[in-house]
Amino acid sequence: MQSFIYDTPTRVYFGKDQEQKVGEIIAGYGAKKVLIHYGTQSAVRSGLIDLVTEKLDAQGIAYVLLGGVQANPEIQMVREGIKLCRAEGVDFILAVGGGSVLDSAKDIANGYANPEVDVWEFTMGTAQPAKTTPKGCILTISAAGSEMSDSCVISDSGRGIKRGYGSPMNRMNFAIENPELTYSVSAYQTACGAVDIAMHTIERYFCPGQDTYLTDAIAEAVIKSAFKAGADCIADPKDYTARANMMWASSLAHNGLTACGRKVQLVVHQLEHEVSAMYPKVAHGAGLAALWCSWARYVYKDNLPRFLQYAEHVWNVDIDYDHPERSALAAIAKQEEYYRSIGMPTSLHELDVKEEDLETLALRCSREKTRSLLGARPLSYEDILAIYRMAL
Amino acid sequence: MQSFIYDTPTRVYFGKDQEQKVGEIIAGYGAKKVLIHYGTQSAVRSGLIDLVTEKLDAQGIAYVLLGGVQANPEIQMVREGIKLCRAEGVDFILAVGGGSVLDSAKDIANGYANPEVDVWEFTMGTAQPAKTTPKGCILTISAAGSEMSDSCVISDSGRGIKRGYGSPMNRMNFAIENPELTYSVSAYQTACGAVDIAMHTIERYFCPGQDTYLTDAIAEAVIKSAFKAGADCIADPKDYTARANMMWASSLAHNGLTACGRKVQLVVHQLEHEVSAMYPKVAHGAGLAALWCSWARYVYKDNLPRFLQYAEHVWNVDIDYDHPERSALAAIAKQEEYYRSIGMPTSLHELDVKEEDLETLALRCSREKTRSLLGARPLSYEDILAIYRMAL
Repeated sequence: MQSFIYDTPTRVYFGKDQEQKVGEIIAGYGAKKVLIHYGTQSAVRSGLIDLVTEKLDAQGIAYVLLGGVQANPEIQMVREGIKLCRAEGVDFILAVGGGSVLDSAKDIANGYANPEVDVWEFTMGTAQPAKTTPKGCILTISAAGSEMSDSCVISDSGRGIKRGYGSPMNRMNFAIENPELTYSVSAYQTACGAVDIAMHTIERYFCPGQDTYLTDAIAEAVIKSAFKAGADCIADPKDYTARANMMWASSLAHNGLTACGRKVQLVVHQLEHEVSAMYPKVAHGAGLAALWCSWARYVYKDNLPRFLQYAEHVWNVDIDYDHPERSALAAIAKQEEYYRSIGMPTSLHELDVKEEDLETLALRCSREKTRSLLGARPLSYEDILAIYRMAL
Repeated sequence: MQSFIYDTPTRVYFGKDQEQKVGEIIAGYGAKKVLIHYGTQSAVRSGLIDLVTEKLDAQGIAYVLLGGVQANPEIQMVREGIKLCRAEGVDFILAVGGGSVLDSAKDIANGYANPEVDVWEFTMGTAQPAKTTPKGCILTISAAGSEMSDSCVISDSGRGIKRGYGSPMNRMNFAIENPELTYSVSAYQTACGAVDIAMHTIERYFCPGQDTYLTDAIAEAVIKSAFKAGADCIADPKDYTARANMMWASSLAHNGLTACGRKVQLVVHQLEHEVSAMYPKVAHGAGLAALWCSWARYVYKDNLPRFLQYAEHVWNVDIDYDHPERSALAAIAKQEEYYRSIGMPTSLHELDVKEEDLETLALRCSREKTRSLLGARPLSYEDILAIYRMAL
């Protein structure tokens, strides 16, 4: 077991009607003027933005609105948000939405608090935020885990770049999680969410490490629950139990809990970010589903015992110890079958990715052949390209 | 699933040599003068206190020492600590030890920060701390979970009272957890620790609630890991993997994670506190082991499905659906057998508890028949007495 720092300071208010507390909660941070950041008009149409402004009014807290965040949030919107915060003297940022809105809000919070640095440097990894602005969220999609994570993914679609950076500054001060607010999420987006949630922990699970049996068992619990909840949510979008377990899985899958004692890089996320950067219509979760099984079939022989543990504990495969590879492949096939059952793709061609782009994707993912991805065996440019080819 | 607030702000530094960072960490809180609170001379003999003072010296941070905390920490020591903090102008409290030292430090931190209230009122539940003093710990025993919990248990042995109170003010700002620091914990204390850790989560698991399958699966992971790690630590006290998994289980078992969405009261803890309050030589973990199986046999029929889930998932019992009670009892017997295998008692007479004291214990535990304990069926004075009798 490797040494680690565990730091999950986000205070979570979980359950029905928790958004009613938002004014009171923000008042507790001594806020005077709040940037309310949101995405499409659905947050307005649902009445959620009105509720927030009403609750802030009741506390005598001023606010300014900035909507319009799209999936794969853009650095331009972040810059606009920072400018608005400066002009208005904002001292608290509230994100209302899913992972894209939350990540945009995080980056605004960091850029606004560190005016001496160009905010894009945080995404590119050439600078780290030293401070941040207090921030919280009302979550409306269970998927990205951004509500408790230290991660923030920003795109510059003009340059075909989409990258994430980790920082303690990216932790929300609070997260309001009412599962009922996700009842209206479409079946497709729900499926994408289930994949993203499970993958946050599956990828940690397959990172190098050993002797972490407590972490492993917790990870298996989160993965299985995410898969079960995802399917149940699709079967009945207003199944509170399913929406609640899925939402809580979203938070725990990506807050650090499921990697304690292991080295971490979310390898398939790295592969996927290049895909949705080049093809912005690709939903992140769908991209992950399209790639995972190929990644797994490419690497499983390098770490067979780990795949057997996964097969047995997550997919209830009876291990064939005479032919252990068959058991590993059986688990991968079961996961592929699950992805199909919830309407997810299991290949890149289903997402209209073109063969002639694969080399560019591999070049970008390997940072022009200057980095390898983490694994039992590190994955070079050639390996990355081979995985993209298998996934096509 | 019930609504809940999840709030685990403690920053954990986990792994070998993490105590070397203590000066640097405390400097990060802007501390000028630290109360170093510890227990018996073993922390001094091991060199750990010297290391702490050396690291504080290197940061130019002053300190004052207060040792001598005993198992079942006393309100008198808390009062002494508060007096010392006032006299010395302490602004940070560092606990070096196990749960007793940590709880004593928490109560000092609360009493010192709230001079208008008599600190004993927090324990009695007649007042709640509104503020606290920044505090951290270096953990040397894996058991109580106090390093991440919101709980604090204090005794007034003169009056035979031992009680716990929960408060957000009881959360440590940081916890240093180096599993190697627990290598010297005796087999008996290690066994008591394994019981206490597992019980923090088992008791939550059996609290009223439903539709919490993610929480349940995480709870099962923590319980099984605690039992495995406990036995492995006893077999080889310097097994790093075992000590590490046990230490991490200690923190997760009692920080709130394993009860999310369920109603909580640690019922067997309530039964046990009266026993070790009356018989101060009884180690808390041993008292829990002596009581749990009787509690379980008394209540299992009221919540058979839950006991079957526990039997199957934690003790790998093949459920006999024609005779489900047999399966529940088989799991209870397995747990009893485990307790014996690690040298724990499974009855009160092994702890020299006398029959003539049982009524007094039940009266105290029921607060003179004014409260019931939580359960599928609430446990009245008569139930409590019956359980003590079964456990004798």
